[in-house]
Amino acid sequence: MNPQQQRGERLQQLSRTGPGSEMGRLLRRFWQPVAVSSKLAAGKAQPLRALCEDLTLYRSEAGRAHLVGGRCAHRCTVLHTGWVEGDRIRCMYHGWQYDGTGQCTERPAERDADLPNVKIAGYPLEEYGGLIFAYLGEGPAPAFDLPRKDAFERPGFMVQRKNIWNCNWLQCVENSLDATHVSFVHAAGREGRFIENVSTAVPELEYLETDAGIRQIATRGPGNVRVSDWTFPNNNHIVVPGPVKDGPWVDVGMWNVPVDDEHTMRINIYSMPSLGSEIDERLNADFAQVAGDYNPADHYDDLFLHRRYPEDRHSNLTNAQDYVALRGQGVIADRVNETLGRSDAGIALLRRLFSRELDALKSGAEPKRWRRLTEHVELPTPASA
Amino acid sequence: MNPQQQRGERLQQLSRTGPGSEMGRLLRRFWQPVAVSSKLAAGKAQPLRALCEDLTLYRSEAGRAHLVGGRCAHRCTVLHTGWVEGDRIRCMYHGWQYDGTGQCTERPAERDADLPNVKIAGYPLEEYGGLIFAYLGEGPAPAFDLPRKDAFERPGFMVQRKNIWNCNWLQCVENSLDATHVSFVHAAGREGRFIENVSTAVPELEYLETDAGIRQIATRGPGNVRVSDWTFPNNNHIVVPGPVKDGPWVDVGMWNVPVDDEHTMRINIYSMPSLGSEIDERLNADFAQVAGDYNPADHYDDLFLHRRYPEDRHSNLTNAQDYVALRGQGVIADRVNETLGRSDAGIALLRRLFSRELDALKSGAEPKRWRRLTEHVELPTPASA
Amino acid sequence: MNPQQQRGERLQQLSRTGPGSEMGRLLRRFWQPVAVSSKLAAGKAQPLRALCEDLTLYRSEAGRAHLVGGRCAHRCTVLHTGWVEGDRIRCMYHGWQYDGTGQCTERPAERDADLPNVKIAGYPLEEYGGLIFAYLGEGPAPAFDLPRKDAFERPGFMVQRKNIWNCNWLQCVENSLDATHVSFVHAAGREGRFIENVSTAVPELEYLETDAGIRQIATRGPGNVRVSDWTFPNNNHIVVPGPVKDGPWVDVGMWNVPVDDEHTMRINIYSMPSLGSEIDERLNADFAQVAGDYNPADHYDDLFLHRRYPEDRHSNLTNAQDYVALRGQGVIADRVNETLGRSDAGIALLRRLFSRELDALKSGAEPKRWRRLTEHVELPTPASA
Repeated sequence: MNPQQQRGERLQQLSRTGPGSEMGRLLRRFWQPVAVSSKLAAGKAQPLRALCEDLTLYRSEAGRAHLVGGRCAHRCTVLHTGWVEGDRIRCMYHGWQYDGTGQCTERPAERDADLPNVKIAGYPLEEYGGLIFAYLGEGPAPAFDLPRKDAFERPGFMVQRKNIWNCNWLQCVENSLDATHVSFVHAAGREGRFIENVSTAVPELEYLETDAGIRQIATRGPGNVRVSDWTFPNNNHIVVPGPVKDGPWVDVGMWNVPVDDEHTMRINIYSMPSLGSEIDERLNADFAQVAGDYNPADHYDDLFLHRRYPEDRHSNLTNAQDYVALRGQGVIADRVNETLGRSDAGIALLRRLFSRELDALKSGAEPKRWRRLTEHVELPTPASA
Repeated sequence: MNPQQQRGERLQQLSRTGPGSEMGRLLRRFWQPVAVSSKLAAGKAQPLRALCEDLTLYRSEAGRAHLVGGRCAHRCTVLHTGWVEGDRIRCMYHGWQYDGTGQCTERPAERDADLPNVKIAGYPLEEYGGLIFAYLGEGPAPAFDLPRKDAFERPGFMVQRKNIWNCNWLQCVENSLDATHVSFVHAAGREGRFIENVSTAVPELEYLETDAGIRQIATRGPGNVRVSDWTFPNNNHIVVPGPVKDGPWVDVGMWNVPVDDEHTMRINIYSMPSLGSEIDERLNADFAQVAGDYNPADHYDDLFLHRRYPEDRHSNLTNAQDYVALRGQGVIADRVNETLGRSDAGIALLRRLFSRELDALKSGAEPKRWRRLTEHVELPTPASA
Repeated sequence: MNPQQQRGERLQQLSRTGPGSEMGRLLRRFWQPVAVSSKLAAGKAQPLRALCEDLTLYRSEAGRAHLVGGRCAHRCTVLHTGWVEGDRIRCMYHGWQYDGTGQCTERPAERDADLPNVKIAGYPLEEYGGLIFAYLGEGPAPAFDLPRKDAFERPGFMVQRKNIWNCNWLQCVENSLDATHVSFVHAAGREGRFIENVSTAVPELEYLETDAGIRQIATRGPGNVRVSDWTFPNNNHIVVPGPVKDGPWVDVGMWNVPVDDEHTMRINIYSMPSLGSEIDERLNADFAQVAGDYNPADHYDDLFLHRRYPEDRHSNLTNAQDYVALRGQGVIADRVNETLGRSDAGIALLRRLFSRELDALKSGAEPKRWRRLTEHVELPTPASA
């Protein structure tokens, strides 16, 4: 392999997340959001594909969420078409039953004297901030700490959103560490409260490794400093103008979780300090009505051929613009033919961190113990800056 | 190859039916239904894919059905877009004409002094029970005997149905020899005359090789014995409750014929003893109206994601439930990771028979001469049992 | 490789047009139409795939068309989703700007002291006859001469059409040199002014290599001689009955340009001598209304399964019939199993010419210098013949 091929191989490795892959092993060491809590009703099951694995997500009749393998061990029928019974799920084909750890607890037609040890996959879940987080790694899960933020635990306006995008997760994460794109991607039409507040000026950039990930500082002029607090390996925390003029800004937590190498779960929390419970509720209802279930990936022809963007100038427009930029790089971005510049410093740092952690994992050394930032991180807004 | 790989290879071999494959050779030794007679009008042609071969099915102006190769020998255009002329079919591109054996009978632009010997594939057909059967093997076809049943030759209510399912034929056939599935797959909602009569109790099973195939006996309690008469290699004959309360049961002949390895023709005859020609006709009309052209494969999202089953609680519901179980195993079922139990005795016997016959065929020994059962086979119903 | 395999390989080579392929190199030595001029508005950009390359077609604000690479050199986002600014185009992701030669002219976030030499592909264009022609070869483009015809430069009725067909370009070109097909493909229903005038009689054929390509003469009887003037490598010029009874015939220029090996741009000019500008304009409007944007490739099920042809009995019917014949050969026609006859003399000559030219190109010899016919070529019509 020549150096060009080695570089290509290394870059490709960063994007692949299947069970046997290096990056798949690394991502599996972290809690990952996989669903919106409110979209999983008690007593119901859903198929879930995450990190290239087909799984079954269900909620017990008492309300506890579980994540087990996608197929029954018996004849390999998908399990989510079966029945939730109490805390367990039963396959629709021959009634084999499993508990939330994936342990088979009943095989009705086998008339077992002693139930043999039959087990499918089962992964621990945590519900937090209106999202369901899973730990898909081997061995015991780490404490549920790194994904937590004060902003997701305060009272007020809070909504969650999950989109499936038809492109690789890594280009979505790279976009989080590319503050420059805001001045172009989100400037289309040069309107909307977001771009008015952020401005289309090209920023000066600074990227610093923290205990939790990367602190990104984009300075567009005096009093216009935008900071984002990125958490390893695939979460970003930013602030954007809120729905109320001159009101507080919204904290956005944004995760990019691989469905598989061609699809990404784009999972967001939008959270704003309370303006009183009446206003909070109205804002929630407004958001649901305006933003709806818009997923830009369902509008490829509109966005790429007819260049029609969604009417909603807030989160839907921003989402659609990012989708055009990221899906526009291809389903899996071509990194061999790219031409990085100094404005790509965040992407370069991101790749260095991933490479360093992958090397540690491969060599058997202990990877960095990323931990939640203990000091309060102030993300400045035009008002506060 | 280690034993695990050998097993995997062997199981895979059972599912593959292309022209060069072992199982393809075995299946081609039997008459197979490929279409519903009433769906092929005189003077019309249709494309037909069967056992991984693309073919042209047409009916002469006088009403005789023919099955020839899918493409003209000249420039390989599909033949079904041409014209039926008398007993022959003419290619739309340059008018080459073929008879029902696939023999080219005219090449108008060639001004042939002597017509050269140009031939495409041609297969013998039989119409029986409202279905078109084809013999796709080499050499002369066997007598049309094995598919016949008294139940398909009596007067009364009789309808035919052909669905294309998006999964491999073998998992469909295996389902025929898996009486246990009825107690789970068809118990969803615990309603409907079928499950009321059969009950959700787990049956005691017995499987016996016969001259024609396998006799399957499922005993769910005193007076509740269900027998099915399976004919080698891919037909099942069962009885189900009829549309008239306390009226006769319906004989169902059910064939699973490979379109290719990812699609299966699910071809059924439903037949019930006559209740007088007026009632017979009304039942026929009712069936057409209620069951319509429902094909569960056209409703994947409804069945697998939204879990919405068809309104019709009779044949459409049963079909949809089977589709969820079988397509739920994947397009081609994963047999390497399955966990068979004693309730899978029918499936185990089925695979042994297929393996035995394939070994015979491969070694040049004569495979078993399966023959129609001469004794009358009584399939007991709750009334008769 | 045995001779059969060698023949298969050679035939396959004729159909493959990607950047590295032999045929791709040959086709790239000629100006090729890629779009209809009126479909590209000033200040707008479109994606364009041609000869297996993804490109960006845009028209400057002042009205000049440009063709550059499909992706920005920076992070490889598709360029057509960006903004046309004056004579240049700017990427929507980070604002890199390119001129019409593909030269990068600005990288706003890089704050370049000296702009480094960053270049993507850029190809020369010519607009002619209402079409945009591109030269996708290496080095300087030849003079824009070979595609020109008197018929495309006179005043009168003139419309253009671009369809994308879901099959390989070569079977489309072969059809141009196959006069016999008219008597069958276009005789369906035995109606319409075209077939009335041409007749369904099988023609006597003559094919002659000219300085520009191939002259095709089809004689169907005394006074019924049809000539077409085919230009290397993928244009045909024919005449068909016009929309006015006993009025002049229409000159049709017909190009088959590979999108990629599975799709073909079918680009036509229809031109008729002027009947006065008022009538010309009305005919133009009528054509737009009757023919609309019908593309047979969007009607596969109608044409291949239900055999429903378009209502318009003029150009849409003819197009649909050709599509059934050509797409009916498969996405890439099977040439190994074809059975050519003496009526395929035009196709045989075509393949000999392509093979000869490919051999010349491969051996480094100079291929033939095809040149526009200087003498006036009279294409006889029933009136003139």
